[in-house]
Amino acid sequence: MTASNTEGTPPLVDIINGALDFTIPPAGKMGVRAIEARRGYAAASVPVEGNGNHFGVIYAGVQFTVAEVLGGMIAIATFDNSAYYPLVKGFEISFLGMAKSQLRAEATLSEEEIARVEAEAAERGKSDFTLEAVVTDADGKTVAVTKGLYQLRAHGK
Amino acid sequence: MTASNTEGTPPLVDIINGALDFTIPPAGKMGVRAIEARRGYAAASVPVEGNGNHFGVIYAGVQFTVAEVLGGMIAIATFDNSAYYPLVKGFEISFLGMAKSQLRAEATLSEEEIARVEAEAAERGKSDFTLEAVVTDADGKTVAVTKGLYQLRAHGK
Repeated sequence: MTASNTEGTPPLVDIINGALDFTIPPAGKMGVRAIEARRGYAAASVPVEGNGNHFGVIYAGVQFTVAEVLGGMIAIATFDNSAYYPLVKGFEISFLGMAKSQLRAEATLSEEEIARVEAEAAERGKSDFTLEAVVTDADGKTVAVTKGLYQLRAHGK
Repeated sequence: MTASNTEGTPPLVDIINGALDFTIPPAGKMGVRAIEARRGYAAASVPVEGNGNHFGVIYAGVQFTVAEVLGGMIAIATFDNSAYYPLVKGFEISFLGMAKSQLRAEATLSEEEIARVEAEAAERGKSDFTLEAVVTDADGKTVAVTKGLYQLRAHGK
């Protein structure tokens, strides 16, 4: 790719957001958006509007979603998408506070873990990895913590 | 309440569904509906339409939601709503199969557990309870199992 082509490519976060509405329609309808996506790191947000429950708190399933999508976003930003795709196998979430404002979720995958997943996927066609995410409100207060079990899998497997 | 008034009262499942769209708007938008709700038992469903991801599989957050709402439905159908309300503290979900058709989730709370929660809530103003749910597809195949940690809490606490 030439320099001019690179300059003409939208940032990865824009590509992810452009795809979100048709790849995960329920997340798109909630207003979930990628904020940042790069090798080993992803952050996403979701607004209060349309997502409240009868306590005026953002519904548990929306908190789940803004954290769960990070697994796919990190995988897209980190691994070889021409060879592998991510899927979620399990998820744990603990609700720690009242989520009454816009939420931000973020997660990190270490270089050591990236190397392990890449090596295992190359050898076995798939590799499981765990992603811990933190969901914070507009004041930076933690409202939920999550642990997602994902798998990177070779296309066609 | 007289017999004629009782006959004029809609079934509990209709009351729950009538309230769902404004008590949990994101679940209403997914098309989550209560199928059955009675003391110690609740079942809910969600359609494929609008809920698929890029694999043609119902998104993980929708599977979470159709199971998570059972905690509120069982609480409404089982406990004294004039005194207590339910909230969710944590949730675990394992994805076991491809969810490619309408989903049904169901959960049961035993009489022993109902008695324990009622007694503890009466004494302490709150009581935690765990609800295990199974999510099945249109063929009755299990696509996910969940374990929700809920709390029954006295109003005003």
